[in-house]
Amino acid sequence: MSAADTTPDELKAILAAAATAATEWALRSAAERAAALTAVADALDAAATKLVPIAQEETFLAAGRLTGELKRTTFQLRLFAELLTDGGYLDARIDHADDAWPMGARPDIRRVLEPLGPVLVFAASNFPFAFSVMGGDSCSALAAGCSVVLKAHPGHPRLSAAVGRIAADALRAAGAPEGLLQLIYGTETGRDALLDPRIKAGAFTGSIAGGRALFDLATSRPEPIPFYGELGSVNPVFVTEAAAAGRGAEIVAEFVASYTLGAGQFCTKPGILLVPADSGMVEELSSAARPEAARLLNDRIHSGYLASLSGLLEHDAVDSLGATEGAFDAPPAPALTTTTASALLADPEGLITECFGPSALVATYRTDDELLAVARVLNGQLTATIQGEESDAVAPELVRLLAKKAGRVLWNQWPTGVSVTYAQQHGGPYPATTAPTSTSVGTAGITRFLRPVAYQGLPAHLLPAAVRDDNPLGVPQRVNGKLAGQ
Amino acid sequence: MSAADTTPDELKAILAAAATAATEWALRSAAERAAALTAVADALDAAATKLVPIAQEETFLAAGRLTGELKRTTFQLRLFAELLTDGGYLDARIDHADDAWPMGARPDIRRVLEPLGPVLVFAASNFPFAFSVMGGDSCSALAAGCSVVLKAHPGHPRLSAAVGRIAADALRAAGAPEGLLQLIYGTETGRDALLDPRIKAGAFTGSIAGGRALFDLATSRPEPIPFYGELGSVNPVFVTEAAAAGRGAEIVAEFVASYTLGAGQFCTKPGILLVPADSGMVEELSSAARPEAARLLNDRIHSGYLASLSGLLEHDAVDSLGATEGAFDAPPAPALTTTTASALLADPEGLITECFGPSALVATYRTDDELLAVARVLNGQLTATIQGEESDAVAPELVRLLAKKAGRVLWNQWPTGVSVTYAQQHGGPYPATTAPTSTSVGTAGITRFLRPVAYQGLPAHLLPAAVRDDNPLGVPQRVNGKLAGQ
Repeated sequence: MSAADTTPDELKAILAAAATAATEWALRSAAERAAALTAVADALDAAATKLVPIAQEETFLAAGRLTGELKRTTFQLRLFAELLTDGGYLDARIDHADDAWPMGARPDIRRVLEPLGPVLVFAASNFPFAFSVMGGDSCSALAAGCSVVLKAHPGHPRLSAAVGRIAADALRAAGAPEGLLQLIYGTETGRDALLDPRIKAGAFTGSIAGGRALFDLATSRPEPIPFYGELGSVNPVFVTEAAAAGRGAEIVAEFVASYTLGAGQFCTKPGILLVPADSGMVEELSSAARPEAARLLNDRIHSGYLASLSGLLEHDAVDSLGATEGAFDAPPAPALTTTTASALLADPEGLITECFGPSALVATYRTDDELLAVARVLNGQLTATIQGEESDAVAPELVRLLAKKAGRVLWNQWPTGVSVTYAQQHGGPYPATTAPTSTSVGTAGITRFLRPVAYQGLPAHLLPAAVRDDNPLGVPQRVNGKLAGQ
Repeated sequence: MSAADTTPDELKAILAAAATAATEWALRSAAERAAALTAVADALDAAATKLVPIAQEETFLAAGRLTGELKRTTFQLRLFAELLTDGGYLDARIDHADDAWPMGARPDIRRVLEPLGPVLVFAASNFPFAFSVMGGDSCSALAAGCSVVLKAHPGHPRLSAAVGRIAADALRAAGAPEGLLQLIYGTETGRDALLDPRIKAGAFTGSIAGGRALFDLATSRPEPIPFYGELGSVNPVFVTEAAAAGRGAEIVAEFVASYTLGAGQFCTKPGILLVPADSGMVEELSSAARPEAARLLNDRIHSGYLASLSGLLEHDAVDSLGATEGAFDAPPAPALTTTTASALLADPEGLITECFGPSALVATYRTDDELLAVARVLNGQLTATIQGEESDAVAPELVRLLAKKAGRVLWNQWPTGVSVTYAQQHGGPYPATTAPTSTSVGTAGITRFLRPVAYQGLPAHLLPAAVRDDNPLGVPQRVNGKLAGQ
C-alpha cells in the first residue's frame, strides 16, 4: 500500500494550519507542552501491540527491535517533557542596567530562546518509530514550541498514518492547537513545502544525495532557513596493536554484531575497521560466524546496497574477506571486504564511503603513523571509535584527530545504539550532517528549533516569564553573567 | 591608499598557516587564550592615539565616536577573556553510565563544545574598530579557539594593517601560534578563501547583496559551512497613541538623534518611524532641528544612499518631510520622508527597505489594528522598538509580533548603540542575518564558532579537562541533566 501524494490544495491548507498552530503553541506554557508530549507517549505506548506488527510488515525489522525502538520513542517524548519543566534549555539571561559598565552605561537586556515557527521534518526509513513521525526531530520541534509538518517516508505509510493519527488525537485531547502535527506525502510535496515561506526550519535523516538536495533548496530560498540534515557516515573503528593482541577475538565478535545489527541499516554502523596487519585479526574476521541474512527495508535500499558493494569489490585494492555466498542474494548475507590503510590513504574518496547494508571494510595498517594518517584523511563522521588500551601511546593524538572529524568519539564501545541522554551528540561535520553545530539526538537537539530574542528595557508585565526578575517558572537564569545560585 | 590584493600564492601560504595555527590554538588552555586576548586589548589601547587619527582620515567618523568604538573593541576582548575563565560557554555535560536508564542501559557520555577550525571574517566598513580586524567576529572566533583569516575592508586599509600588525604582535608576544590572525585583501581573494576546504566557518557584516552572495558560496561548497552574515535591517519604531500624546516632542528629538547618529550608517539605525496620524508628531518631525551634514564612509556608500533615497522619493506613496535642502549634496544633509501605514501594507517590499545613510521614513497610522498589521508584514529585523506607555492595550500583542520578526525588541529606548553584554542579541531572521539562531554581538556570539563533541566511555586521561569528573578547570558542568551545584 502506498499513500496518495498530498495535493497542492491540501498542502496549502496544511501550511496555513501549521502557521496558526505555531502561533498558538508558542504561547502555551512549558507545562502545557510537557503534558501534551507525555500524552502522546502514553497513547503510543498503549497502542504498541497494534503498531509494532504494522511496522514489522512494512519494514521487515524484528519485533524485538521495533518494540525497543517504540520504547525509545516514547521515552524520548517524556525526557523532553522533563527538559521543558527544567527550563535550562531556554538559556535565560538577564543583564541589569549598569551605568558603570566599562564600555559605557548598559541598558537592561534580557535574552531567551523562542520557537522558530513551523518546522518541516522529513522522516527516515530505517527507524520507523524513532526517526519518523514522532521521532527525535518532531519531538524536539514540538517541545521547542514549533508546529510540525511531517513528510512521511514511503517505506512505512500505514505505520506513519497510524502514528500520526494517534499522536494528533493525543495532542488534541491534551488541549494542543489543531494542526500542530500534520502529515504530508510525496517527494514533490516535500520540496514544495520546504520552499514555502511559512516553513522556518527543516530536519532530515537519510542519504547524502537526498539530504544535500534538500539542504540546497532550503538555502536557496529567498529567505534561507536552517536545515538540519543527518546524512551519511562510515563510522570508522581504530583497533590499536595492544587491543588486537589482548582481545582480538572479542573485538571481532563485537564488531560483527555491530555492523550486522538491523541488517547494517544504521547511520552509525561501523563501516570501516582498521586492524594491525599480521595481528591475526583478519584471519579471525574471515572465519567469524555471521548472523543469518535479513531482508532489507525496501527494494531501493537493497539495490543501492548491492551497487555500493559491487562498486567496492571492483576497486583494485579491495577483496572479499571470508564467506561470500549469499552476499548478493535477497535477502543479502552479511559480507566483509578488505583493503589496506595505504590504499585508503591513496584513494580516500573511493574507499571511505558509506555502504548502507550488512557489510563492512576491514583495512590493515602497519604503523601507528599510518593509523593517524587515516584519521587525518577522514571526512565528517557521526562517530569514530577506538578499540585500545589505556597505555596506548597513540591514543591521545588519535582521540584529538578523531574529535576534529566526528560528533562522537568512542572508546572500547560500539557506535550502534545511540542513547537518548542529556550529553548525547549525534552530528558531525559534513557529510555526516549539514549543520555541524547541532545534534539530532539527545536533549540538546531542542536548540535547533529555537532562536534568541533580547528584550531591552521592557516593563515586567511585557517580558516573557523566563526572564522576569521574580522568575515565576523557576528556570535557571544567568544574571549579569553568572548563573543564579552559583 | 589602497592595499594590493593578496595573490593566490600568498593566500595559499596564509591558509596553510591558519590551519596549523588552528590546531595549535585549540590545544591551548582557556587561561592562555584569555591572556592573549587581554594582551591584544592592552596593545590596542596603548596605540589609541596613533590609531584613532588613521581611522578618522579613512572613514570621516568623528574622533569621539572612534575613541569610544576602540574602547568598546578592547572592552570586548577583555569580556571574552573573562568568559573563557568562566567556562560556562562550553556547555559541558556529563552523563554517567546508568543501567537503569529507562530506554535501556546508557553508557558514560560527556559532551563539550570545541573549536570549528579556521574562520574567515569579512570586515565591515562602518565600524572600523568594532566590526573590523579585531572586532566581535574575530574576538569570538579567537576566544572559541579558532584561527582567523581576516578579509580587510577596502574602506580603511591603513587602519586595518595597523590593527592587524599590533594584534598579531601582541598575540605572538603572548605565546600564541604564528598565523593565528592574518589579513587578506581583495574581493576575489575573499571569495577564493571562502571556498577553501580549510576554512570551517564564515562571518560577515555588510549589505544584503554582498552577504547573500557570500552565504550562497559558503553553502554551495562541496562541504558547506556555517556562514554568519549580519546584513540589513530597517529597525522599525512603533509609537503608540499614548506615547505620542504624552511625550511626542521628546520622542521626535531622540529619534532624530538616533537616525542621524554616525551619519545614519548603523545597521541598527531606526529607518521607519510609525506615528499616529493627527498626533502632531509629523509636524514636529517636519520642523525638528537636524544635525549638520556629515561625510559618508566612502563614495560607494554615498552613491548607494542617494540611489535608495531617490528611489524612495519616486514612490507614489512617499513625500519629503520637512527641509530637503542638501539631502543630495556631498556630504548629504539628514533627510526625512513620509508615507502612510496603509501604503506600507500595500507595498511592504518597496517601502520597508534599508536606506543606509542619514534618512528615515515616517509612516502615519490610524488605528492600533493598522499598527499590528505593519508588525505582521515585516521581514526579519535586527531590532524593533516600541515607544509606549505601560497601560497601552496594544503593547502585549505588539511585543509578541515583533519578537517573531526581530532579534531585539526595545521599549522606550533606541536601537542604535549595541551594548556588548552577556544577554545581548544582535541578529534576527533573514535578511537581518543569514543565521537566525545566532548573535554577532555579546558573549553568546562565541557559540557560532564551536561544535559539540561527545566522548563515550573514555578513560579520564583521554578526556578534555572540561568534562572530567574532577573538573580541574572548575567550569559549570551539567551532570546527569542537572547543573552541578544547583
